[in-house]
Amino acid sequence: METGMAKAQIGVYGLGTMGSALALNMAEAGIRVAVTNREADWIARFVTEAGALAENIVPQDGLEAFVASLVTPRVILFMIPSGAPMDAMIEAIAPLLSPGDTIIDGGNANFHDTRRRSAALATQDLHFVGMGVSGGEEGARHGPSMMVGGSDHSWAQLKPLLEAIAARYGEDPCVAHLGPDGAGHFVKTVHNGIEYADMQAIAEIYTLEHHGAAKIPEEIGAMFTRWDAGPLKSYLLEITGKLLTYTDPETGHPMVDVIWDAAGQKGTGRWTVIEALRMGQSASMIEAAVGARGWSSEKYTRVEAEKILGGARGAMECSEEVLADAFMAARILSYAQGFRILKAASEEYDWQLDMARIAEIWRAGCIIRSAILDDISEAFQGDIPHGELILAPRFAQTLAQCIPSLRQVVSQAVHSGHAVPALAAGLSWYDTMRQGWGSANIIQAQRDFFGYHGFEKFGVEGQFHGPWWDD
Amino acid sequence: METGMAKAQIGVYGLGTMGSALALNMAEAGIRVAVTNREADWIARFVTEAGALAENIVPQDGLEAFVASLVTPRVILFMIPSGAPMDAMIEAIAPLLSPGDTIIDGGNANFHDTRRRSAALATQDLHFVGMGVSGGEEGARHGPSMMVGGSDHSWAQLKPLLEAIAARYGEDPCVAHLGPDGAGHFVKTVHNGIEYADMQAIAEIYTLEHHGAAKIPEEIGAMFTRWDAGPLKSYLLEITGKLLTYTDPETGHPMVDVIWDAAGQKGTGRWTVIEALRMGQSASMIEAAVGARGWSSEKYTRVEAEKILGGARGAMECSEEVLADAFMAARILSYAQGFRILKAASEEYDWQLDMARIAEIWRAGCIIRSAILDDISEAFQGDIPHGELILAPRFAQTLAQCIPSLRQVVSQAVHSGHAVPALAAGLSWYDTMRQGWGSANIIQAQRDFFGYHGFEKFGVEGQFHGPWWDD
Repeated sequence: METGMAKAQIGVYGLGTMGSALALNMAEAGIRVAVTNREADWIARFVTEAGALAENIVPQDGLEAFVASLVTPRVILFMIPSGAPMDAMIEAIAPLLSPGDTIIDGGNANFHDTRRRSAALATQDLHFVGMGVSGGEEGARHGPSMMVGGSDHSWAQLKPLLEAIAARYGEDPCVAHLGPDGAGHFVKTVHNGIEYADMQAIAEIYTLEHHGAAKIPEEIGAMFTRWDAGPLKSYLLEITGKLLTYTDPETGHPMVDVIWDAAGQKGTGRWTVIEALRMGQSASMIEAAVGARGWSSEKYTRVEAEKILGGARGAMECSEEVLADAFMAARILSYAQGFRILKAASEEYDWQLDMARIAEIWRAGCIIRSAILDDISEAFQGDIPHGELILAPRFAQTLAQCIPSLRQVVSQAVHSGHAVPALAAGLSWYDTMRQGWGSANIIQAQRDFFGYHGFEKFGVEGQFHGPWWDD
Repeated sequence: METGMAKAQIGVYGLGTMGSALALNMAEAGIRVAVTNREADWIARFVTEAGALAENIVPQDGLEAFVASLVTPRVILFMIPSGAPMDAMIEAIAPLLSPGDTIIDGGNANFHDTRRRSAALATQDLHFVGMGVSGGEEGARHGPSMMVGGSDHSWAQLKPLLEAIAARYGEDPCVAHLGPDGAGHFVKTVHNGIEYADMQAIAEIYTLEHHGAAKIPEEIGAMFTRWDAGPLKSYLLEITGKLLTYTDPETGHPMVDVIWDAAGQKGTGRWTVIEALRMGQSASMIEAAVGARGWSSEKYTRVEAEKILGGARGAMECSEEVLADAFMAARILSYAQGFRILKAASEEYDWQLDMARIAEIWRAGCIIRSAILDDISEAFQGDIPHGELILAPRFAQTLAQCIPSLRQVVSQAVHSGHAVPALAAGLSWYDTMRQGWGSANIIQAQRDFFGYHGFEKFGVEGQFHGPWWDD
């Protein structure tokens, strides 16, 4: 079908929530987009629902027709489940493609898979792009933040298309070519890791106010909304402020009071922590957030544990200003941990990630968009001692002001029995890093004592063993 | 050589520290053991150093002679570096073996490798045993704790040999057949994870006393030694108490004061946390210990950070009794987290791990041997609510007594600026688990708001979305 029609500039395979939204976004931007889907009946429905935008949409039933409807070199965006389905689609479509064509995986793929697929397709002169897309359905439809990993050849083709549909921060489109193969998916993974930590920090502060200061959801929501008007401005605070105002239509209770407190998770938070560990890093706040979701899902164990161990929580006495400063400190620490992982991966895979640019393309469209990304971007444009974000003058200064509040909040929470795993983990990291003289001399002495592992000494070159071996 | 001699009951390949110690242990137990080594000159030296034990040692130069000197079905223990060397050795020796022979990897292998090797050798009717050996050189020589994963066939052969050389707790030899393929190496990995957490907790308490209460190493060592005489009795406290009494021969300073505070690590701590995460678990205290070692290695960054952020630590005012109870709580929590991972893996791989037996074989010979393993073993012999060690009556009771002290220590440490990542992480987990009503309702509301992920509600079956989608 569609013989004689002008060819499409890009193809979108997969008309689920995200694929449909991106295709409509492209059509609206004046891009001629071919679409197809495994279940053929979705295609006609999509075109009908596209309304006037259908004039830029080239619906195709069947892979051959879909491929044939694209200008060459072709650019095909897959918005399908990651993992085995992606491998199956690559196998099906690769024989229909020509050298120089590009396949894009726009899902939340594990970057190791992206690297593998990229290398495999390169042997057939095909290009593979791993693209992180953030912003949910709303972002995909009206402007997502996009993190692209792939070849310069693919980027040259993709740049005008993606800049036309990306979220804009002022005039700046929130999309960038971050590096080869898995770079885009890796950056998206870490984005999600930071998202986990920021959400968890918000949830912890909510709980302190709710269970420790007897505030009702609406009051706490109003507080988050006030914070969202200042330097803490961010999408996650904004939506939390909003959702806390809603009432359950069935019971009339505040909506959050009837939501079962067992959180789901997909892979990206966990992957962030696993990759950090693999590279000898620790993203402790992200780990705390991932862990907290896991523990939350053990709801029945917790209910039983409360009967056995007691669940009492004492009163919290922190002013709104103290809580806000504590949250600012926690936010800086969680973003800083995310950027540490990016730095480690950039070195391990020689991606030469542009940290300032990553911060820039996160400023609009994505879930972790927030005012501090402007500061992070500026910080990375200057010199940062040891590349450590918390040592950049701007952040060191903000931390000097805000850490006492985080200290007060965590100390009180711990004392009163409130669980604040992410806030506490952030502070533990901060206190570890700000002390030149830590506690690992004890660990090294123990390791040498039982395993003859050896250690270094202050002011002397070489490897030594303790005098306990001379006895 | 050695023609006409009686054949050996077991072969040991690899005469490094651990291999030599195990071979001597066997010879001393009256086991006839063939030995060989890649570097042939190590063999003669080993025999010379074996002294009178040489009468039970059958030295062999070359793989064919080594294999030929063993009774069939053969049992060959490799004590060589994990990873590629092990694969190379399997490839070299497998053609020389007969159906029913067993190869044992006694190193700290990743259990995924052990499972792979086990499956590959099974196709040649060869048996592969992954055996965790704990106790360092001293343990290997005079009685290690050994965790065996492999076939019943292999175990039938190995049992008398290993029971003869194992550490003994009373009359009980500290060795067990824990399950097939990777079970032994997995349990050893988690053993090491717990070891990381316990060492870190000791190091944190040391630091609180040293930097927060101006105690000198010898005083703190004496405290640990006192603790080692009671319910906290453990190898790690014992050796820390000892090593803190030593003086650096060069400077005359306390030894630990001149040891560079940057800790090394090999794979097992990290693997524990990665596997926990992969299975949807969080071993937050082990993660904190792994993370703390990583951060410690960033010594120069920390020294610079102290100049920028300030490294001040305030005074701690905790009695020795409070510190001891806090440490008891922390120890229970870290062991409990380790057993949670074992439970998850046992279910994922259908290993049917016997938790009580694992606790038993850790009571002597290994690095984490400690008095609470008796209690853990007893607890697992009874019913434990939700299989959660902290809910076993005995531990729930001890925690009720000790948690207030942990709370006091962490709260004060956080307030005063001391870094206690493992102690704080343990308490965060405890406080999360003991509260039936947590904070994940907020996370679920956020996820539904931005991603239409849905949630469950209290008292109603089904999956729901928030009223924010109706606007």
